[in-house]
Amino acid sequence: MTAERFFVTYRVTPDDSRPIEAHAKDICIEETVEIPEDAIPASHWEQGIVGIVESIVERTGQPNDYDVRISYRADIANNEIPNLLNVLFGNISIRRGIKIIDIQFTDEQVKAFGGPRFGIDGIRQALNVQGRPLATTAIKPLGLSAKELAALCGGYARGGLDVIKDDHGLIDQHFHPFEDRVSRIQDAIRDANAKTGRLTHYYPMLAGRFDTIEKQAAFAKAQGCFGVLVPPMLIGPDTGFYLARKYDLAVMTHPTFTGTHFHDPRHGMTPAILLGTLFRLFGADISVFPNYGGRFTFSEAECQDLASALRGPAVGLKSAFPSPAGGMTIEKVGAMLDAYGEDTALLIGGALLRYSPDPEVSARAFVTALEQAVSTKKV
Amino acid sequence: MTAERFFVTYRVTPDDSRPIEAHAKDICIEETVEIPEDAIPASHWEQGIVGIVESIVERTGQPNDYDVRISYRADIANNEIPNLLNVLFGNISIRRGIKIIDIQFTDEQVKAFGGPRFGIDGIRQALNVQGRPLATTAIKPLGLSAKELAALCGGYARGGLDVIKDDHGLIDQHFHPFEDRVSRIQDAIRDANAKTGRLTHYYPMLAGRFDTIEKQAAFAKAQGCFGVLVPPMLIGPDTGFYLARKYDLAVMTHPTFTGTHFHDPRHGMTPAILLGTLFRLFGADISVFPNYGGRFTFSEAECQDLASALRGPAVGLKSAFPSPAGGMTIEKVGAMLDAYGEDTALLIGGALLRYSPDPEVSARAFVTALEQAVSTKKV
Repeated sequence: MTAERFFVTYRVTPDDSRPIEAHAKDICIEETVEIPEDAIPASHWEQGIVGIVESIVERTGQPNDYDVRISYRADIANNEIPNLLNVLFGNISIRRGIKIIDIQFTDEQVKAFGGPRFGIDGIRQALNVQGRPLATTAIKPLGLSAKELAALCGGYARGGLDVIKDDHGLIDQHFHPFEDRVSRIQDAIRDANAKTGRLTHYYPMLAGRFDTIEKQAAFAKAQGCFGVLVPPMLIGPDTGFYLARKYDLAVMTHPTFTGTHFHDPRHGMTPAILLGTLFRLFGADISVFPNYGGRFTFSEAECQDLASALRGPAVGLKSAFPSPAGGMTIEKVGAMLDAYGEDTALLIGGALLRYSPDPEVSARAFVTALEQAVSTKKV
Repeated sequence: MTAERFFVTYRVTPDDSRPIEAHAKDICIEETVEIPEDAIPASHWEQGIVGIVESIVERTGQPNDYDVRISYRADIANNEIPNLLNVLFGNISIRRGIKIIDIQFTDEQVKAFGGPRFGIDGIRQALNVQGRPLATTAIKPLGLSAKELAALCGGYARGGLDVIKDDHGLIDQHFHPFEDRVSRIQDAIRDANAKTGRLTHYYPMLAGRFDTIEKQAAFAKAQGCFGVLVPPMLIGPDTGFYLARKYDLAVMTHPTFTGTHFHDPRHGMTPAILLGTLFRLFGADISVFPNYGGRFTFSEAECQDLASALRGPAVGLKSAFPSPAGGMTIEKVGAMLDAYGEDTALLIGGALLRYSPDPEVSARAFVTALEQAVSTKKV
């Protein structure tokens, strides 16, 4: 690994009267050598081991608000996810008024982290679905038996959904233990696929303990699951991406336990950075996020930025599906298509339970609405 | 596992005009079944699978500010760390104005998660240090060679420090690869201990990838390390606690990448909950946190609450050392002793590098200041 540098733009709103240059230098030191400035060896400055302030731009019309671009040596982040996050936003997470709004990685970092293995094209090919968004749902609620969940899944698959994921609350509880649930659901889906002649993929929630989670990934693969639902902040930012790669599983990421990064517009990371740029770099093929206009707090602009971070051009990286969710309904399908376009994995969860007592009917209504919206749009 | 319930108090400041009862119910549903209220099966209500609002108390003199106590069935959190965090603060992390300020676990949960294995008494006994705070440092900066870090460590150990940890930026970079660093440092510490006739413990930073981290823990144990430095949010909230238990290593937790949970007084968790209550429950013997008056943002009250969460009485749990850090100096030792008392692991990092070019001299000055402060206090 050479001493190439990668670039991070922090939006900084100082909470004291020190000049912005002092705040910028604080970040450079805190995220690397973390010692008083006068104790830093001269060679550390010369070799660029301390972060370097590349530019400071005051935002027009935003007093006390700056975009600070800092570069770090890539070998300090060492092409490992825990290490990289520590450099990007380790101790400064405990300060105030620092928000990551952009990151530019080196080619070598992109190659090392690897990005989506399937991406939009790979998932479309595997499902044999072109020209429309994917129809996706989550099976719930937690507390049903594995048998009941499997029946639900079978219905959704017969109704024509493309991707079914576990609700993120379904982990390994006695109501629906992981292996029993996964094997019953995969059986139900196999039966449905045989009947319909098309394909539905199931992504079980991968959230076991350190000592059980690899066995879960291997089990999901052995049962024929196409992918897994990965909650990076519950199981470790590296864990799910690593296991999916090892067991050749697609990755759908879930944003549970990530929210404190976003909710303050002046501190943390934007949704586009964490759920988009970083999760895509790490290997997300589909990234679930709470859509605007539902139960959550993302704005329309934040959602669009996130979709761009997942699908926009990025040298060396496949693109990933944005999967807007969180209070979506069949009635909103047309509006969501307008907002996000075809390369989207639309996720309607609880509203399908409400639409009809028969999951097959609900699923068919969802897919029909989707096809109608697409054909209306194309006319 | 029985259907016992545990209790979480959320401080809620609604961001819309709906009644507080609606916000409380939102949390109960979002963190469990996550479906529209009218789609929840009657049996789920009867069996208490949905969270239950136990009380809502409006805070005196704080308009639009409520303490909402909610109980959850313990078997929904299933005595696993990723699962528990998902119930405590999963999707609601992406909402606004919800802060965890208190948690009461069941006896069975306490037993299952286990808490500190050594605790304050166990670590004191192993070090043979009684009647004063521990003298602790972090070796840095990142980018020195393993040999230089080992020389630094040897000096600190000869100077009489009790615990030396890696700076959290020292991971597995080519400057100081994990195994080379740990074996050189342990050699230096063994030599120093032989010379002084006392004991210094070294805690290396455990932040490898999923596929390397267990080997790192095993290596640290084989080299004779007493404990490891665990950054739960970088490696997964379960990973380090699990490995330390498996390899019989003490746990010092590090707060890197946790900060977005704290910095908004109206959303997230208090430092006492995450770095205190939860990390202690999961197995922290020492919890490092940024002290007030240094480079970070915690208030004095937050730090004291955190110390109480680590050391206060808790049925079935050993107590853990609070380790205030982040810009501390030898001059502040007396004030820190006054503030935190004897059962504290005082951590002075970069300031030791500045105090003298000879680490042995710096370490001795730290320990001497500590002993003087203690004897002054006892007089």
